Amino acid sequence: MDKPQIGVIGMAVMGKNLALNIESRGYSVAIFNRTAAKTKQVVTDHPERKLVPSYNLEDFVASLEQPRRIIMMIKAGAPTDGMIKQLLPLLSQGDVLIDGGNTFFGDTMRRSTKLDESGINFIGMGVSGGEKGALEGPSLMPGGQKEAYDLVAPILEKIAAKADDGTPCVTYIGPNGAGHYVKMVHNGIEYGDMELIAESYDLLRHLLGLSVDEIAKIFKDWNQGELDSYLMSITAEILTRKDDLGSDQPIVDVILDRAGNKGTGKWSSQSALELGVSQSLITESVYARYISAMKQERVVASKVLNGPKATKTFSAAEKQQLIEKIRQALYFSKIMSYAQGFAQLKVASEHFDWKLAYADLAKIWRGGCIIRAQFLQKITDAFQTQPDLNNLMLDPYFKKITDNYQAAVREVAALAIQHGVAVPGFTAAITYFDQYRTAVLPANIIQAQRDYFGAHTYERNDREGIFHFEWYHEE
Amino acid sequence: MDKPQIGVIGMAVMGKNLALNIESRGYSVAIFNRTAAKTKQVVTDHPERKLVPSYNLEDFVASLEQPRRIIMMIKAGAPTDGMIKQLLPLLSQGDVLIDGGNTFFGDTMRRSTKLDESGINFIGMGVSGGEKGALEGPSLMPGGQKEAYDLVAPILEKIAAKADDGTPCVTYIGPNGAGHYVKMVHNGIEYGDMELIAESYDLLRHLLGLSVDEIAKIFKDWNQGELDSYLMSITAEILTRKDDLGSDQPIVDVILDRAGNKGTGKWSSQSALELGVSQSLITESVYARYISAMKQERVVASKVLNGPKATKTFSAAEKQQLIEKIRQALYFSKIMSYAQGFAQLKVASEHFDWKLAYADLAKIWRGGCIIRAQFLQKITDAFQTQPDLNNLMLDPYFKKITDNYQAAVREVAALAIQHGVAVPGFTAAITYFDQYRTAVLPANIIQAQRDYFGAHTYERNDREGIFHFEWYHEE
Repeated sequence: MDKPQIGVIGMAVMGKNLALNIESRGYSVAIFNRTAAKTKQVVTDHPERKLVPSYNLEDFVASLEQPRRIIMMIKAGAPTDGMIKQLLPLLSQGDVLIDGGNTFFGDTMRRSTKLDESGINFIGMGVSGGEKGALEGPSLMPGGQKEAYDLVAPILEKIAAKADDGTPCVTYIGPNGAGHYVKMVHNGIEYGDMELIAESYDLLRHLLGLSVDEIAKIFKDWNQGELDSYLMSITAEILTRKDDLGSDQPIVDVILDRAGNKGTGKWSSQSALELGVSQSLITESVYARYISAMKQERVVASKVLNGPKATKTFSAAEKQQLIEKIRQALYFSKIMSYAQGFAQLKVASEHFDWKLAYADLAKIWRGGCIIRAQFLQKITDAFQTQPDLNNLMLDPYFKKITDNYQAAVREVAALAIQHGVAVPGFTAAITYFDQYRTAVLPANIIQAQRDYFGAHTYERNDREGIFHFEWYHEE
Repeated sequence: MDKPQIGVIGMAVMGKNLALNIESRGYSVAIFNRTAAKTKQVVTDHPERKLVPSYNLEDFVASLEQPRRIIMMIKAGAPTDGMIKQLLPLLSQGDVLIDGGNTFFGDTMRRSTKLDESGINFIGMGVSGGEKGALEGPSLMPGGQKEAYDLVAPILEKIAAKADDGTPCVTYIGPNGAGHYVKMVHNGIEYGDMELIAESYDLLRHLLGLSVDEIAKIFKDWNQGELDSYLMSITAEILTRKDDLGSDQPIVDVILDRAGNKGTGKWSSQSALELGVSQSLITESVYARYISAMKQERVVASKVLNGPKATKTFSAAEKQQLIEKIRQALYFSKIMSYAQGFAQLKVASEHFDWKLAYADLAKIWRGGCIIRAQFLQKITDAFQTQPDLNNLMLDPYFKKITDNYQAAVREVAALAIQHGVAVPGFTAAITYFDQYRTAVLPANIIQAQRDYFGAHTYERNDREGIFHFEWYHEE
């Protein structure tokens, strides 16, 4: 057997699947896990594969071809720091260490700086697509030294998902934390997409009174058009499934309305707040999950607080029209969410000096990852035409959608508010659109208040300079 | 002259005013500033006051009565760490060091832990009310050791603002970072209050087409009722002022619509995200300031992106009705903002084990601080009746407001959305209300998606346990 060209540390499902994926492209793969039993199990389960197990880290590192290529697929945080500490004395200058975990970009930046001193190349790589993606082809977002990326690019390109046009869903993202940052915003966008689909479902179910079966058909239909996406397709699929514990109900009707989270949507919102850029739709999606988790408190509140009747009676024709309007509202809102996500990436890129190539980001999200969707091609096109585009909605294609669909999202959001159906994603979308396209916002009032109570000064709209008004003199 | 009973470090405007405030209550006050000139200036400007200047830190500390009481009013962050480092060798066990700066609560917690080892008492104290408040009576939010608080309580009670019933606007908040945390949420709430007033102004001005003078009268009128507050009153006042550079326009019409911020609203939102609690209204207020700051980009966008006509023609009677509805929407939304703020304080109190007394917090905000308002008495009453109240809107008084005013906020928000006027605060308010009072949210869809692509499992609504659905088997 060849000396393994690459090694994977961590044989939990993501690491194992990634190792099997790499091996399936013709490589020999060294594998290691903190507890030996897991490593043994992988070898036992896949005797025909070119997997080279090691049961201590020294052997694992020694077994690899040089310069060594190692992907860590372990728990983010302290375990990753611990593993790097153990590996450091075993590695040589020029080796490439990749963290493929769900790591906070700030940690990756800190580790990059530290590893730079030792001459070990370090790549923080976002991996999207879940277990299935890891095995069959994920979308990969590697950030680190460009030279280090070049050393692993042939392997990464082989294991990555392929978009419809055959392009591998991986590209060099940028230095240090850029890869994990982009993955974080990707996940934030994923929160937004999921929230918007859930809101559409809620309106169809509770405002229009449609059945789960009917909604499944509508979503399947929507998935044929501009909303074509992985999340739309699996939701249509989910809605067709019956309870597996025999109740004869749709499975969604027995699933408790508590949504969990792993923190990446939160990080994404916290970073937007830090960088001074609005990410209202994703943040509302995070908050919506938090409120969903307060199930018992909501049940109590529902008995105390009154609201309007959610269901309205519509004629068949009105229903058809409203279904189409909800579809338009969903697409419009999705565009606003991506507009915010890419605006944030632009601010982050300038702040951290990453020189992100926005068209390439949209391109590698076209396959493998959870947010894969036809419309990412439109985003790719937009940034290829105008690499410095300030906001997605200024691109002609997206601007036209805002022209054509804004009436629908306004009507749907207003109807939802009037009927007591919470649509935080839809309202964040239309609000952001109106804020962004409004030349004069009422922030003059806020700045006047700040100058009044705190002497924070203000600018004027008729001349340059910083001014303070003597508010108290006339009192 | 007596040995000074207390010392103030930092002679910028906040520190100087606080020193003058303390002195005016009959104390002798030691003062110190990094640069001697400022200290000299204060003494020169106030020769009649019992101010004891020192020009090095050793003399300053030595001049004080023991146990020493020192308030630092200096720049938050590294300067505060630097000053503590310099002071530490000069202080004795039992001395009380107070940080009255605009400090992040996490820094206060870190410093508390560190100073605990040395036996020096440390209080992180939020000071609200701006320059004027510092001089005439601020609202004070001290957090630290209870014994340390007792050593300074007599002075703090004298210098604090007094509520209408004569109660001083200061109380012991809780251990370590509790004081600065409460101040941070106070500031977040302030962002919300300001945003809601700005949105009300925007609707009156642009949807109803009223003049600045007319709006000034309306705000003055509103300030007589349940909206009675400092921010409402100063906004009414601001709207009456004419340009001081002679243009004959209302000053608000020449003030540029760019709102700045000092980061406390951002911290408050980031902490809400960290603790898993929704603070959507304050977060939208922070984002609204960020978008306001993109003035040039908005002006460009306003020429590209279309929207509906903001102004609508109303009859005089309709106008009167709508003005009242906007007033109701403002009060309803304000209540939602405070409901979120207090819900966050509850989660923080449990998370950090601070045992916050919510009624007392509302009580000390009734005077001195920027958010002072009549309706804080209602919050005090609510928490005095039910100290463990989960959410403000479950209190009978506030529940009744939601019953009576929700139709107005729904109509106003819907109208704003239809006419392209962004009202992020109003929509966040009604959305939060609808989320909180809804027993079944569409989060079942999100959790089903998470289980589908990531095997994240779900709970059921008909039995206990954690479940996973075999989504792929039937494919």
